[in-house]
Order: sequence, then C-alpha cells, then structure tokens
Amino acid sequence: MYRVGIVMGSQSDFDIVAKAIDVLKAFDVDIEVRVLSAHRTPTEAADFASAAKERGVGVIIAAAGKAAHLPGVLAAYTTLPVIGLPIKSSLMDGLDSLLSMVQMPKGVPVATVAVNGAENAALLAVQILALSDEGLAEKLSKYKDDMAKGVAKQNKAVQKELGGK
Amino acid sequence: MYRVGIVMGSQSDFDIVAKAIDVLKAFDVDIEVRVLSAHRTPTEAADFASAAKERGVGVIIAAAGKAAHLPGVLAAYTTLPVIGLPIKSSLMDGLDSLLSMVQMPKGVPVATVAVNGAENAALLAVQILALSDEGLAEKLSKYKDDMAKGVAKQNKAVQKELGGK
Amino acid sequence: MYRVGIVMGSQSDFDIVAKAIDVLKAFDVDIEVRVLSAHRTPTEAADFASAAKERGVGVIIAAAGKAAHLPGVLAAYTTLPVIGLPIKSSLMDGLDSLLSMVQMPKGVPVATVAVNGAENAALLAVQILALSDEGLAEKLSKYKDDMAKGVAKQNKAVQKELGGK
Amino acid sequence: MYRVGIVMGSQSDFDIVAKAIDVLKAFDVDIEVRVLSAHRTPTEAADFASAAKERGVGVIIAAAGKAAHLPGVLAAYTTLPVIGLPIKSSLMDGLDSLLSMVQMPKGVPVATVAVNGAENAALLAVQILALSDEGLAEKLSKYKDDMAKGVAKQNKAVQKELGGK
Amino acid sequence: MYRVGIVMGSQSDFDIVAKAIDVLKAFDVDIEVRVLSAHRTPTEAADFASAAKERGVGVIIAAAGKAAHLPGVLAAYTTLPVIGLPIKSSLMDGLDSLLSMVQMPKGVPVATVAVNGAENAALLAVQILALSDEGLAEKLSKYKDDMAKGVAKQNKAVQKELGGK
Amino acid sequence: MYRVGIVMGSQSDFDIVAKAIDVLKAFDVDIEVRVLSAHRTPTEAADFASAAKERGVGVIIAAAGKAAHLPGVLAAYTTLPVIGLPIKSSLMDGLDSLLSMVQMPKGVPVATVAVNGAENAALLAVQILALSDEGLAEKLSKYKDDMAKGVAKQNKAVQKELGGK
Amino acid sequence: MYRVGIVMGSQSDFDIVAKAIDVLKAFDVDIEVRVLSAHRTPTEAADFASAAKERGVGVIIAAAGKAAHLPGVLAAYTTLPVIGLPIKSSLMDGLDSLLSMVQMPKGVPVATVAVNGAENAALLAVQILALSDEGLAEKLSKYKDDMAKGVAKQNKAVQKELGGK
Amino acid sequence: MYRVGIVMGSQSDFDIVAKAIDVLKAFDVDIEVRVLSAHRTPTEAADFASAAKERGVGVIIAAAGKAAHLPGVLAAYTTLPVIGLPIKSSLMDGLDSLLSMVQMPKGVPVATVAVNGAENAALLAVQILALSDEGLAEKLSKYKDDMAKGVAKQNKAVQKELGGK
Repeated sequence: MYRVGIVMGSQSDFDIVAKAIDVLKAFDVDIEVRVLSAHRTPTEAADFASAAKERGVGVIIAAAGKAAHLPGVLAAYTTLPVIGLPIKSSLMDGLDSLLSMVQMPKGVPVATVAVNGAENAALLAVQILALSDEGLAEKLSKYKDDMAKGVAKQNKAVQKELGGK
Repeated sequence: MYRVGIVMGSQSDFDIVAKAIDVLKAFDVDIEVRVLSAHRTPTEAADFASAAKERGVGVIIAAAGKAAHLPGVLAAYTTLPVIGLPIKSSLMDGLDSLLSMVQMPKGVPVATVAVNGAENAALLAVQILALSDEGLAEKLSKYKDDMAKGVAKQNKAVQKELGGK
Repeated sequence: MYRVGIVMGSQSDFDIVAKAIDVLKAFDVDIEVRVLSAHRTPTEAADFASAAKERGVGVIIAAAGKAAHLPGVLAAYTTLPVIGLPIKSSLMDGLDSLLSMVQMPKGVPVATVAVNGAENAALLAVQILALSDEGLAEKLSKYKDDMAKGVAKQNKAVQKELGGK
Repeated sequence: MYRVGIVMGSQSDFDIVAKAIDVLKAFDVDIEVRVLSAHRTPTEAADFASAAKERGVGVIIAAAGKAAHLPGVLAAYTTLPVIGLPIKSSLMDGLDSLLSMVQMPKGVPVATVAVNGAENAALLAVQILALSDEGLAEKLSKYKDDMAKGVAKQNKAVQKELGGK
Repeated sequence: MYRVGIVMGSQSDFDIVAKAIDVLKAFDVDIEVRVLSAHRTPTEAADFASAAKERGVGVIIAAAGKAAHLPGVLAAYTTLPVIGLPIKSSLMDGLDSLLSMVQMPKGVPVATVAVNGAENAALLAVQILALSDEGLAEKLSKYKDDMAKGVAKQNKAVQKELGGK
Repeated sequence: MYRVGIVMGSQSDFDIVAKAIDVLKAFDVDIEVRVLSAHRTPTEAADFASAAKERGVGVIIAAAGKAAHLPGVLAAYTTLPVIGLPIKSSLMDGLDSLLSMVQMPKGVPVATVAVNGAENAALLAVQILALSDEGLAEKLSKYKDDMAKGVAKQNKAVQKELGGK
Repeated sequence: MYRVGIVMGSQSDFDIVAKAIDVLKAFDVDIEVRVLSAHRTPTEAADFASAAKERGVGVIIAAAGKAAHLPGVLAAYTTLPVIGLPIKSSLMDGLDSLLSMVQMPKGVPVATVAVNGAENAALLAVQILALSDEGLAEKLSKYKDDMAKGVAKQNKAVQKELGGK
Repeated sequence: MYRVGIVMGSQSDFDIVAKAIDVLKAFDVDIEVRVLSAHRTPTEAADFASAAKERGVGVIIAAAGKAAHLPGVLAAYTTLPVIGLPIKSSLMDGLDSLLSMVQMPKGVPVATVAVNGAENAALLAVQILALSDEGLAEKLSKYKDDMAKGVAKQNKAVQKELGGK
C-alpha cells in the first residue's frame, strides 16, 4: 500500500500539519513527514518529490504559508497527486497562501483544500488511496457515518439547551 | 478501471468543461458527463453521487460558478475524491466560485483547482487513477516530458525572434 | 401562524444563532431549531427542508460559515423563503461565507443578511410573517419606535458626556 | 393580495430590473415601479417607503449600484421586508454595491440577493407573498419543477453532443 | 464663524469620534455633536442635515460602520460639504464601511478619509473652514510645523537608540 | 474668490478629469489645470502646492491612478483642502488607487471621492467654496433641485415604458 | 559589465516582457532571454539560476502569471537579486500573481514591481547595475530628466487644449 | 563601499525596521537610519533622497504603512534602487501599504518585498551591493547554506518528535 508524504515549509507549520498526521494515523495510513522548503532547500525538495513514487509514496500533502510555492514546486517533479494545504499567515487571513497554491498554471495541478484545513488534506489523501484499498474505503464510510452521528448529537444537545424547542 | 464522472451545474459551463473532457479522452480514460444542479435538481445530484462508486466511478469532477455548491454537495453523498472546478462568473473573476468550493468545512474535502482550470481538473483525476494503473502513470510521464519539450520550443521561438539574444 | 425553522451547520454557530432565537422569542414567534449539516448530514438537511412547509414552517433561517452551502441546499428542497446568515469564520472576516450564500444562481434565491447579523435574520423573518399577522406588524412598529428611542437616549448620553456641546 | 414595489436608483438600472419585472408578471403579481434615488430624491424615497404598506405593497425590491444605500434607506422608513438587488458597477464587479447593502446594522435588515440577481429578487418576493397565497405557492412549485426539467433537458443536450458518453 | 456638525451612527463609535472632537477643540472650532442613525432615526438625521446650514454649521463629519450610509444620507439633504469617517467594523477591517461611503454616485459627494481616521476628518474640516478664517489658517500652518518637529524628534530618538548610526 | 487647482498625474487621466472641469465651468468657478507627476516631476508638484494658496487657489483636486500618491504629496506641501480623485487603472478596478489615496496617515488628510468620480470631486470643491460665496451656494441648491427633477423625469420615462404600471 | 537575465514562464508573456527588453536595449545593457517554467521545466529553471552568476548575469527579471512561482524558484538557486514581474492573468487583475511573488518568506527576497510593470522591472535592473557603472548612472539621470520633460510637454498640451486655463 | 539608507515614516515602524538593521549589521554593511515622513516632512525626505548618492548611499530601504507613499516619494528624487517595505497597518493586513508601494507608475520603480518582510528588504539590499563586493557575495552564499542547514535541523526536530516517522 502507498504511503502519504507530508511536507511542510517550516517547522512553524507543524501545529496545523499535526492534525493531518492524526487523521492519517487514525486511518492506519503509513506516512513520511519532512520539513523541506521550496526556497531554502530547493534541491532537497526536488529530490524528495522526484523519488517519492519509487519510495512507495502515493500522495503528497504540502503545507506552506505566504507565497506558498511548496506544493507547486513538488508537483513539478512528480506525477503523483499533490495536495496543497494553505497555511493562514500574514496577509488577508491566508488568501495569499490560497491563491499561490490553487491558481497553478495548466499542466501541473495542485489539489487545494481550505486554509488551515489539515484534516481535509488528510481525508482527501485517504479518499485517493481508498480507490485501491477496500479496507480504507470501508473506514471512510464508517468515518462519514460517525460524522453524521456527531451532528445528530450536537442537534440533541442544542434541543436540550432550548428545552425541546 | 475506474471512470471519471464529470458534472457541470449548467450547460453554460460546457465550453470550459469540454477542455477537461478532451484531456481525459487523450488519456483514454472512460468518462460519464452530466448536467446536474445542486440547487435545481438536488435529488438527481444526490443520486448521482450516492451511486457513483458502484457504477464504477473513481473520481468526480464538478464544475460550477458563483455560489458554487455542486462539488461540496456531491462530496456529501460519496467517499470518492471530488475535484472542484470553479468557473469564472460574475463576481471578482471567480473568487466567489473559488471560495465557495475550497473553503469546505472539516470532514468533507473538495480538491479545488484554479478558476477555469479544466485541464488541471482532468490531469488531477488522471494522477489519482494512475496510482492503480501503471499504463496511465506512463502516459503521465510522457505528458510531462511533452510539456517540457513544449516550453523548450517556446524558448527557441523567442530566441529566434530576438536574433539569438 | 407559521413557525420559523432555524438551522445551523454546527453547534459552534450556536452563540451567534442564539441572538436570532432571542429576537424571535421576544416577538412570540414559534420556532424549531436544528443542527443539520449540508455536508455531514445531507439527507437529514434535505428532509428537513422538504417537509418544512407541511410542518407549519413559514420561513427558514440557515446559519453557516466558510463554504456556507447550508441555506442554498435547504432552498433547493423548498419553496419557502430561506434567510442566509453568514458566520464569520477563517477567511477574510466571513467574506467566504457571505459570497457562498449571496451569490446563488438564478432560480433559487437566498435572502442574505450581514455577516454574524443574527438579529437581522430574525427581524427579516418577523417582517415576512407580519405580512399575514397584523399583531406581529404592530410589534414591529413598536420595535422600530423603541430603536429610535434607543438612539435618542444614546444621543443624550453623548451630549451629557460632552457637557451639552 | 399584496403588490411588490420595485424601486431603482437610476434609469440606467432598468435593463437589470426588467428581468425582475418579467418574473413577477409571469407569476401575475401586481407591481408598482419607481425610479427614486436615496441621494438625489431622498424625500420622495422616504415618502414611497413610509406609505408603501397602506398602498397595499407587501414587499419592496430596491436595486442600486456603487454606494448602494437605496434598500437600506427605504427599510429605514417601513417595516415591510426590503429585498436588496446589488447592481454591478464600477468597483470590483459590484462588491461595493453588495457590501453597501448586505452589511446593514442591527435592527434594519435588507434581504440581499446576488449581484445583478434580478430574477432571484423577484422569486424571493414571490416566495414571501406565497405564504399567504396558496395559488402563488402552487405556481412556485411548478416553477421549481420546470427548472428541474430545464436542467434535465440541458443534460440530454450535452449527452447528445458527446455521443451518449 | 461656522460650526462643525459631528454625527455618529451609534454611541459605540464615540471612542473613535472623540479624537476628532479633541482636534476641533484644539483649533477652537465650535462643534455640535449628535448620535443619529440613517436607519434607526432617519427623520431626525434628515432634519439635522436639512437645517444644518441655517443653524450655522459649515461642515458635517459623519462616522459610521458596516453598511455606512450615514454621510451619504446626510449629504442628500444638504449642500454643505460632508466628510465621511468609516469606522472599522466586522468585515475586512472596515472595507465595507469605506466602500459604502466613498463610492457615492454622481451628484452627491462624500469627502471620505481613512478608516478610523478621526483626526484627519477633523483636520479636513478645519482646512475647509480656514478658507474664510485667516486665524484658523495660521493655526494650521503651526500644526504642520509642529508635526514636522515631531518627526524630527522621532528621528533623533531613533538615532540615539542606534548610537548615532 | 478662490480658484480650484486641478492636477492630474498624466495626460492619460484627462478624459476623466475633463468631467470635473465641465462641472466647475458650469458653476463659473475659476480653475487652473496642470499635468504634474508626484514621481516624475516631484519638484514642480511640490512648488505647485507650496505656492497654491498665495496664487489664490482655495481647493486642489488631484487625480491619479495605480500607486496614486499625487494628492497626498500635494497635501504635504499645503494646508489647503486636497480632494483625491482615484483613477480606475490596472488592478482591481481602481482599488489600488483608492487605497493609496484614502488611507492617508494622521495629520495630512485627503478628501477622497469615488473611483473615476470626477463630477463629485468638482461638486465637493464647489461645496467648499460656497461656504464663503452665497452665489455659489444658491447655484448648488438649484443643481440639487435639477438633479431631483432629472430623477423624476427618469421615473416618468420608466412609467411610460411600463404602460403606467 | 553584468548582463540581465530575463526569464518568462510562457511565451504568452512575451508581449509584456518585450517592453522590458526595449528599455534594457535603450540603455545598452546586455541581456539573455529565456522561456523557462518553474513547473514544466523545473530542472532547466534551476540550472539557469544556479549558473547565472558565473555566466555573467548580475540581475534576473522573472515574469509569470497566476500562481507565479518563477521568480521565487529562481531566487532559491542564486544569491543574485531577482526582480519579480507579475503578469495580469485570470484572477482579480493579477492579484494572484502579485501575492504569489511579493509575499516571499524570510530569507529569499523577490524584488516585486507592479502588475504588468515591465518597464519598471527593466529600470530597476538598470538602477542596480548602475551602482557599479557610472555610464549607466548618467543615462539614468538623463532618463529621469527626459521623463520630467515629457510631463512638462503633456502639461503644455493640456493647457493648449483648455485655451490657457 | 556603499552604505544602505534606511528610512521609516514613523518611529512606530521601528520594531519592524529593526529586523532589517540587524540583518545589515550581521553582514557588516554600513547604514544610515532616518525617520522621515513623505507627508509630514516632505522637504527633508526629498533632500535625503536627492543627496543620498553623493553621501555614499547605494540602496535605500523605505518602510511605511497605510497610504505608504514614502518609497515612491524617495524614488522620485534619486536614481538609486529603492526597496519598499510595506508595514502591516489598519486595513486588510497591510494590503493598502502593499498596493500603495508596488503599483508604482512607469518610470519610477519601487522594489517591493512582503508585508512586514524587513529581513528580506535587508537581504535584497545586500544582494544588490554584493554585485560589486565579492566579500558580501561570499557571505550571502554562506547565509544561504546556513538557511538550508536550519531547515535540515527543523526537519530532524520534527522527525524526532514523530519518533522517526
């Protein structure tokens, strides 16, 4: 089975990225995690992406902020799907990170999720891997059921607070 | 092999979506194409997504403009990866479509590509399917090589125009 | 008389939504309150909206943040007026929520109020119901008078603070 | 039965507003149409709103562009529901009009629809009036069915173009 | 000599407006201060503006947030210059207030200053009144000189901190 | 009586600025018009502003686009009121010009009008000069009346087109 | 003397880039021009930047649109100053390109000029090279004088058109 | 060797600017630091820039917030390269400062770095000076190596935290 490669541009992104790691662990997906910078360690980033497929990586998640080039730069060196996780940083609540990731030119897509949407980056990776892993697919169905139950529980809590209204 | 399900919210999106169809055909990927609206035919949209997996669909591409709910609504009914293709519409060059797609809440990701980025939506679908189809993976490598050659050709054309400068 | 159906996408929206509930209670309008997610409990949300009219609901208020599809999704399943209440969330002070609600495509309107404007969502519902309820209409006139008095009171307070300037 | 009052800030808004008029005529809803400016004829605008209810108006639709104060100014003089229709004008594709309408302060709501969303402004008015007019409610149901059929037709047209794909 | 009329839409704007009052007092300009709402006390606001000139007001400063209609509404009822002071509120750091004020349609200008720029609103009023009051003009020249001295002082402080660098 | 000094940053702004000139001529206000650039002829711009008052200028209108420093730079050299007219240029429909003008720091106000709002820049100048010129004030009142009549005429035209609806 | 390396991400950027080339030729600065893509020919782009200094390049100008990573990616491989020229593309008049370039993280600057500001990119390169080339510095002074004369000429043209006003 | 001139519009910018000073000191680059305002001390600012070259300044860094004219105003008086450092201020996380700097008109470039990107402003100045100072160029290479080592260290720290994953 494929592993998920998780790359962050800076250790300061780790608090957000940790939520993606937790989701992937909960799904028993193998991961490899790296701090690699598109601008400060460009060769290492290129090497990571170039050899990812033969190392057994199936999907790459790349988190970065500001002029967030990391997922695009990794995507330049691989044909694996690359998920972009924009980190909320200095300008306009992460709009700079978001636009720097999602507006990729023709030929090199980055699958972008919400600003700081680490859980969704992980879930998207699981959805992709589940196409060739029925066990994962079943776990996803269960996850979806549990989410619905969670909402139902919230609904009950609100009903109770309002006295049955 | 999986098919790619392509859904657009309105026939008026077809000109953009056609570019995704062309890419998928060039990769010999089976497709099914539908016009389904999250708001005007919600039941049909829900049915399409609910049964997509058992119909053999592996990835869904959903294109929509303005308050672009279609990919999120489809994602609500399936665990398949859903790719969101924001269509440039009335407000701020498609920023409304982009934000309506990419900012999905925790639990239900949409893999969003650039505004009007139809080719990249298709390529992302191919990248995902290529994880379990080595033939596709090889075609992707060739596609990447061809892109590089295309840039080299553009480079030569510019050199020529400048007289070798 | 009609009831107002109030739906929020997550329990975390309750603090804002509670202000709408308070206004509706002050006008003695019957309410039903639910936590329902367009993405995590789509079937329940659809069922809620489909049967709302026969349950005696006249207006629906739907609160959600980020890619705020909830009011649009409910509006897809009913011909009742749906009021969208955008919740301030991660990106650009709620601009993502606002655009995701207000930019609805032709055929399925959402009556959108200000970001976090819960009181106005409730007042708009009261204004709508007051068209067929003269008692409510009188309460609205009184509410408007009281608001004007409140401003007059603020005016006096400021005059006093400035020493009659 | 109530009439719908339609106000535009300038004759130049008429091309957009005409689409709302067409929808209301299709539903056989009585209308009164005025050009009134919040800034150039403020007294006339105030008089229009103040006396609207006793003239038999149930809902007001107000269209304006740029610093679009018209719906808010009318709402200040009436307790009727006021629908704001932002007109696309000079700045950022109508974002100025949209924010000037939707961000109304507490106490005086404006039910805002999409930029240039004239049909939806009219449909929202019909939805509101249908609460006390079962005939209108039935027409709305039929309208919703026809919309779904329209999408189905578009779907067939696309299938045909693609040769059944 | 003319007085400056200062109007705020809500007492909650007073903390910002107070800075304008302080500047005007420092220039010995007579003021009248009111809390008046374009939406909650529209008649009082209209009356204030209509009679401002004959009361001896020369310039009006109007402060408001969100859908900030107040200066535009006052300007509709007077030919006096109206200065708009956008208050930073819920959306995008006051961009909604700014656009609601500055984008006034042809025929009714609002002289808009920076978001929360209360001192500048007051200084602009002083500049206008100084055209017919040489004493004020001299005070303005002195104010400008003092500002320059203030910067020179800041410059020295920084030099000192850097050890004369 | 004071003259109005009109400065544009480039001859390419003349088409917009001409509308301000027309309004000022209609009010029989004396003008002086210059092309002066804050960046390409900074000394000339500084000289113009420094000596404006003693030349008999009462108000300065400065039009510029993009990083529109011109009104701020002129305001730095004079205590006369400076009206900023943002010209719609390359980025976001003139938002760059608008923000570059309106967000002036404390101490040096620029009275900013709408993007491309040349007529309003002129009217604001007239309003300011009318404080010490009763004849101008009367012309302004007449102008306001004529505007109202213009709207009434538009209203009749729309009534007629709709067959009296 | 150093050469200026000019890189564009796509041949479609050539029309804009040509204006930079013209300026550099007018200053007799040696150039080398390449079409190189950060995403489609990442290795070639890296090689270009890595060896630029030893090839005699002193400054790099990199033009790109959308998620415009090119200048940042080149800057990652060199210590030469890199000038970023954002190209106006699909979203918000080039705001995506601008933010993708200018918001570079700490350690790897990109000297960003205006959207489509090709002449300024070239002039900035000349300013940098002029620090070690007195001849260039003199040409820059002359260029500045000529610009001022150009504005003076525009001023006269406007005076003439207005009949000396 | 050239000095770097550092100018800030207000002492309140010093906390950010100090980071640029630290970087320049670490590279042993001579500096001169001034508080000069484009609007409050325009003559001093003009004098600073006009005489900068003959004082031995090679590059100017100008920091300012809001309507951030300072770098553009300095650039108007010199042919030296001017680096603009936008300071995060009141509106939209510094977008006003950024656009006021970067969108300079043709003929007078400002080399703009990220909002609050003081270190990068300094590094860009060093890169420029290093073109004629091989010692500086070597320090830059070492700085780049150290950055890469810093990322490698962060990478190890994350590996350790994850237990070698």
